[in-house]
Amino acid sequence: MSYTMDKQVEGDFGNIVEQTTAALEDEGFGVLCDIDVQQTFKEKLDEEYQQYRILGACNPELAHEALENELVLGALLPCNVIVYETDGDNIGVSAVDPEALLSVSDNSDLDPIAADVRDRFESVLNAL
Amino acid sequence: MSYTMDKQVEGDFGNIVEQTTAALEDEGFGVLCDIDVQQTFKEKLDEEYQQYRILGACNPELAHEALENELVLGALLPCNVIVYETDGDNIGVSAVDPEALLSVSDNSDLDPIAADVRDRFESVLNAL
Repeated sequence: MSYTMDKQVEGDFGNIVEQTTAALEDEGFGVLCDIDVQQTFKEKLDEEYQQYRILGACNPELAHEALENELVLGALLPCNVIVYETDGDNIGVSAVDPEALLSVSDNSDLDPIAADVRDRFESVLNAL
Repeated sequence: MSYTMDKQVEGDFGNIVEQTTAALEDEGFGVLCDIDVQQTFKEKLDEEYQQYRILGACNPELAHEALENELVLGALLPCNVIVYETDGDNIGVSAVDPEALLSVSDNSDLDPIAADVRDRFESVLNAL
């Protein structure tokens, strides 16, 4: 099972991070968490690594509905969108597939929320 | 399938967040992301919510090994530990079960890493 929804785009890495953040905002997601993997590995391991960002995206209405339904679901939140350099010239943008992620819970009440987030993430990737 | 490893503890919420962060550090995890769910829901939805924090924990060595193995795995990282008020007097601390989380990938090369993180999260919960 693939657990990501993927797109390859051309352009400047920083610009694509900004475009992804803006596209997420258009779909009602705030970026609550922004991890610079390259910088983290440099600081903690003194390892050179490709540019790689993990954007933790949260739609507050949907997150609230999901947590009301299942208190510990925060262990799986926020839903990430990653932006990373690939072996080629392109930049990869991958969103976690919310349906795959929430499949680890056997709570079918979460299915409509996962489907909603998935539709929004598709729109985000299409906007890039 | 349960996707969390859970403990109930008594004490002050803020102190337990600090103790959890310190226990994670003792096991080699930095907290790269700290989401205050209560504050987020108040700001974005004007909703009152219980105290609830999502700590995104990353062990740089293990994360590096995992990403070298599977580039898009960042979509599932960091591994979260949540601290939350419950209906009773206790505070809940739940770590995502890394083996459940990584089960969405069919990459068995990740199994030893997931098992290692799981052992460390057990030590974190035992330390509280």
